[in-house]
Amino acid sequence: MAFQYLTNIPLDQAQADYRAFLAERGFGPAAETVPVQDSCGRVTAGPVYAHICAPHYPASAMDGIALAAKVTFGASETTPVTLTEEDFTVVDTGDPVPEGCDAVVMVEDVIRQEDGTVRLYAPAAPWQHIRQIGEDICAGEMLLASHVTISPAAIGAMLAAGVLEVPVLRRAVVGIIPTGDEIVPPTADPRPGDIVEFNSSIFSAMLTQWGAVPRTFPIVPDQKEAILAAVREALDSCDIVLLNAGSSAGREDWSAAVIREVGEVLYHGIAIKPGKPAILGAQGKKPILGVPGYPVSGILVLTELLRPLLDDWYRTAPQAETVREATLSRAVVSGLKYREFVRVRLGKVGGKLMASPLGRGSGVVTSFMKADGILDIPQGVEGYEAGAGVQVRLLRPAEELENTLVAIGSHDPLLDEAADLLHLADPALYMSSTHVGSMGGIMAVRRGETHIAGVHLLDERDGSYNTAFIKRYFPNGGVRLVECVGRTQGLMLPPGNPQGIRGLEDLSREGLRYVNRQKGSGTRILIDYLCKERGIDPAKIYGYDREEFTHTSVAAQVANRTADAGMGIYSAAQLYGLDFLPVCMEQYDLLIPDAAFDTPMVQRLLEVLGSGAFRERLERLGGYRLETPGAVRQRF
Amino acid sequence: MAFQYLTNIPLDQAQADYRAFLAERGFGPAAETVPVQDSCGRVTAGPVYAHICAPHYPASAMDGIALAAKVTFGASETTPVTLTEEDFTVVDTGDPVPEGCDAVVMVEDVIRQEDGTVRLYAPAAPWQHIRQIGEDICAGEMLLASHVTISPAAIGAMLAAGVLEVPVLRRAVVGIIPTGDEIVPPTADPRPGDIVEFNSSIFSAMLTQWGAVPRTFPIVPDQKEAILAAVREALDSCDIVLLNAGSSAGREDWSAAVIREVGEVLYHGIAIKPGKPAILGAQGKKPILGVPGYPVSGILVLTELLRPLLDDWYRTAPQAETVREATLSRAVVSGLKYREFVRVRLGKVGGKLMASPLGRGSGVVTSFMKADGILDIPQGVEGYEAGAGVQVRLLRPAEELENTLVAIGSHDPLLDEAADLLHLADPALYMSSTHVGSMGGIMAVRRGETHIAGVHLLDERDGSYNTAFIKRYFPNGGVRLVECVGRTQGLMLPPGNPQGIRGLEDLSREGLRYVNRQKGSGTRILIDYLCKERGIDPAKIYGYDREEFTHTSVAAQVANRTADAGMGIYSAAQLYGLDFLPVCMEQYDLLIPDAAFDTPMVQRLLEVLGSGAFRERLERLGGYRLETPGAVRQRF
Repeated sequence: MAFQYLTNIPLDQAQADYRAFLAERGFGPAAETVPVQDSCGRVTAGPVYAHICAPHYPASAMDGIALAAKVTFGASETTPVTLTEEDFTVVDTGDPVPEGCDAVVMVEDVIRQEDGTVRLYAPAAPWQHIRQIGEDICAGEMLLASHVTISPAAIGAMLAAGVLEVPVLRRAVVGIIPTGDEIVPPTADPRPGDIVEFNSSIFSAMLTQWGAVPRTFPIVPDQKEAILAAVREALDSCDIVLLNAGSSAGREDWSAAVIREVGEVLYHGIAIKPGKPAILGAQGKKPILGVPGYPVSGILVLTELLRPLLDDWYRTAPQAETVREATLSRAVVSGLKYREFVRVRLGKVGGKLMASPLGRGSGVVTSFMKADGILDIPQGVEGYEAGAGVQVRLLRPAEELENTLVAIGSHDPLLDEAADLLHLADPALYMSSTHVGSMGGIMAVRRGETHIAGVHLLDERDGSYNTAFIKRYFPNGGVRLVECVGRTQGLMLPPGNPQGIRGLEDLSREGLRYVNRQKGSGTRILIDYLCKERGIDPAKIYGYDREEFTHTSVAAQVANRTADAGMGIYSAAQLYGLDFLPVCMEQYDLLIPDAAFDTPMVQRLLEVLGSGAFRERLERLGGYRLETPGAVRQRF
Repeated sequence: MAFQYLTNIPLDQAQADYRAFLAERGFGPAAETVPVQDSCGRVTAGPVYAHICAPHYPASAMDGIALAAKVTFGASETTPVTLTEEDFTVVDTGDPVPEGCDAVVMVEDVIRQEDGTVRLYAPAAPWQHIRQIGEDICAGEMLLASHVTISPAAIGAMLAAGVLEVPVLRRAVVGIIPTGDEIVPPTADPRPGDIVEFNSSIFSAMLTQWGAVPRTFPIVPDQKEAILAAVREALDSCDIVLLNAGSSAGREDWSAAVIREVGEVLYHGIAIKPGKPAILGAQGKKPILGVPGYPVSGILVLTELLRPLLDDWYRTAPQAETVREATLSRAVVSGLKYREFVRVRLGKVGGKLMASPLGRGSGVVTSFMKADGILDIPQGVEGYEAGAGVQVRLLRPAEELENTLVAIGSHDPLLDEAADLLHLADPALYMSSTHVGSMGGIMAVRRGETHIAGVHLLDERDGSYNTAFIKRYFPNGGVRLVECVGRTQGLMLPPGNPQGIRGLEDLSREGLRYVNRQKGSGTRILIDYLCKERGIDPAKIYGYDREEFTHTSVAAQVANRTADAGMGIYSAAQLYGLDFLPVCMEQYDLLIPDAAFDTPMVQRLLEVLGSGAFRERLERLGGYRLETPGAVRQRF
């Protein structure tokens, strides 16, 4: 059954209306009193006043003697004053100043006599060297205002001021109800058709970061009565309820009906993408949000629609966003009807911040894990051209972006291992890889969008690798080719090679399903070349147009028997326990523009490539030949 | 006994040497495995690889029918293909694509016949509308590198990839040992000489914020054997031990001797202020830090010397600091021998960021609570002139500073109440008050350092308030005087007026101790005027030179009988339950430069002053007369 949204409300309006709707119904926190020692990070429910002064007694600020200043009046170099033991008290720093005393004389200025008396050669000013009562805090003084977050130092100040308990805003308890017939709890080995329920784990972590207390309820099947019962139960113990719909849009969605039955629905359908099926409802003052099942939609709905409610609950201003101007690496098309939030990778190359859109499917949970920023495309805007300047909201600290080595080009698992070793060597350095094939890497270098590009491009004329392409695409030079590895390309086949494939010639056999790599990838260029060389017609190979973007995703298709053969590197085949028919050894190198070459990040990477640790990791992956990785092969 | 430091090592060197010293001895974390659901915010101990693909089965991306694409080849508008039920399977979005099928046709393109067959008018491309295995994540792919912090989205990605447990760096357990004979646990009612032990509460909160696990041990008296036993016990269960010395520098400090006895001392004495008595030691690979007893010193030693160790433990880069150029509002003098960290208040007034140094005493714990930033004065620099441009490290988000109303001038508790109401009205707005007296406020307005200044300045010639001074100091105008309150000034006396004081004339009586306000405060100008008017010689008043900076601190001295009388406002007397001898009613107004007047912050404040809530708060404080607070009295 196709799903009908009732509304298509702009986000800003939805946020404002929902907050006003809830405020009217009394949404807001209760206060609770906690021991001051446990109050760090909590928000004060009201102003906090000092109970006592700090210091709470007049204290000596020096080691010396305490006395009444007036007994010293008139003392001078020529007319010293002599004091007997009744006139003074010996004090250390921090000791209370005895009653009747109003000054302290430093031990250095006290001349002790043999008879126990002391002599002073200067008068003491009243209150000298005494820490007055209330020097730091006066009883009755407001220490903390209402609705401020308690810091470690504030804890110290409260305890110094005799405040042992503090009223704070109670933490919001947020119930999460996962629903769906196909939904199963996390498992290492789900069956086909099972949808692993990890949304509640993501949401719980987000809520905890936002200072709320998540409470996840058991998975509820797609039955109205069951969902209704679960929502009622959650409302009993929670301040806010999230009803997480099944991921399948093909099923009946009971969320809106259930929320309407227990309370009210303000809006069903928000003009955002992802996240448009969101439902904003409430039972009395308790918000109930219908959250779409796809994880990316859910993350966005929580961020854009739930978090403002928590700001209201904790009476805090929304967290400031860091926005940066970035250049889009490729065009983004967006629907006019929705405001779209596109996850982007960011890379700072040669002073320019480049934004590359990540997978936009709602199911692509890694897009949020990998995202460095969010491109917010307003409703009514059709998108942006490649090269356009756009405003991007950062999801990582700006300085991390400065320290991130950008790799755009051909895929090889060795890039992840190198990234790991780079970050191990220096925790301030990161590496971000985008797989667009060797030709994509060359273009990224030309456009100044990457620090390095993995390339393995066969020159059809002489069978050499990389140099011919570089000469063609960089006629004026300005780049270096850095040696990386030799690697074995071949046919990946299911274990035991059930179809008895003996070479490329068998690929066009009837009933055999091939899986290919995308155009522009070095591996695609290789198979195209090999087919031509051997007189094989690609049009006869079933699945030759089926394109995957990495060696591992080709291997995954073969391993899962959705394809019978695919071309790729040995390490990918080994990872999946596949049979492997070696076809050739090729050179996988790194193309590095001169401007990036001398940066500390690139130099550190080259050290990593030459390290024993890198060699060990590649031996484990298998199928690589290492000579002098990290060495400059040629300067163009 | 005066304390001898053994070394005076520059901070940078101490940090680097200590880290190298510990690294050599094997300081660093062990790994532990935690359920992925509990791993948010933890740091990965090694790379995390996907266990299964996500999706883990080929899934329909549409509602429709799944089939083998080849059965549709040749279909067209004129030559539709008819399929029987054996040829296809009805699927909803997310359903597994059955074996033998390699395409999905959308329900909209499927023409159902009455006999159960379906007709297609176009061929299906192989793999259309199918979410391929591994579209998001491929088994074996590196999901997370080593030593990265796990985000909510990463939790989702791990669970999607069948990873249920993740190895993370174990949290560092940090033992805190408070020592000192005078030290008592937090209490609402300490005795004179008791020093309340709140350092361990501050340190615990800081450590928790930094991802460590604090463990506070009982207070240990100043005896070597007892401290030794406590350190040994802490070393048994902790990764790092903090030995917090007693606050009194007059006592023997056993820390260095004890650390030397259980292990080694690298440095004793660091060239920083506050914090110089710090001790950097270790037993084997376990750091033991001797932390000075004064809270401000302790906070600094933890920040500068312990936090880098936690960065090493968690293999994270040091947190980036936000540094801003600010103008010093008054001169700061610093010793050449030390690098000094001065806590400053920051205020953005008219586009200029002003930094005002806060109390520099080591015992002033509120200085860290109130601090907006840290001015780092290098070793060898004598300080800075007023008006100097300095670099300040921010302790609050920069945008909060933009939204902070700066009040510099005369003290009145009503300012704290107004600040509280302002922040209650808009959680994005803050107010920061500095008490420098009415004349200080006028000067701050002249220098463009404040948005508002509380003033109550009596014109000796005609008994009027404020206008004469404003005309004198702002001959060219540019400021507005805003009505605030009338308030009662008088003599604050101990309850029951034990000395039987009946007026100002009694203040010069033998044996009576007066406590005064600082020069330049409106209250000081008032008492000076009253003395002159009544022919009282201030030189005859004992304690006339004893200066306090606020009404409440004067009241605190009288309440604690360290003074017998002081001039101040009724609300301060009432706060301390003092007797009060009214002397006059005065006008306390706000001076606001034109440039600040129209800012939303100031406008919001004026609304607050006119509100019923403000009136109620002031009625509770007592002694105020409210007419039309917030109204402009005069424009100059």
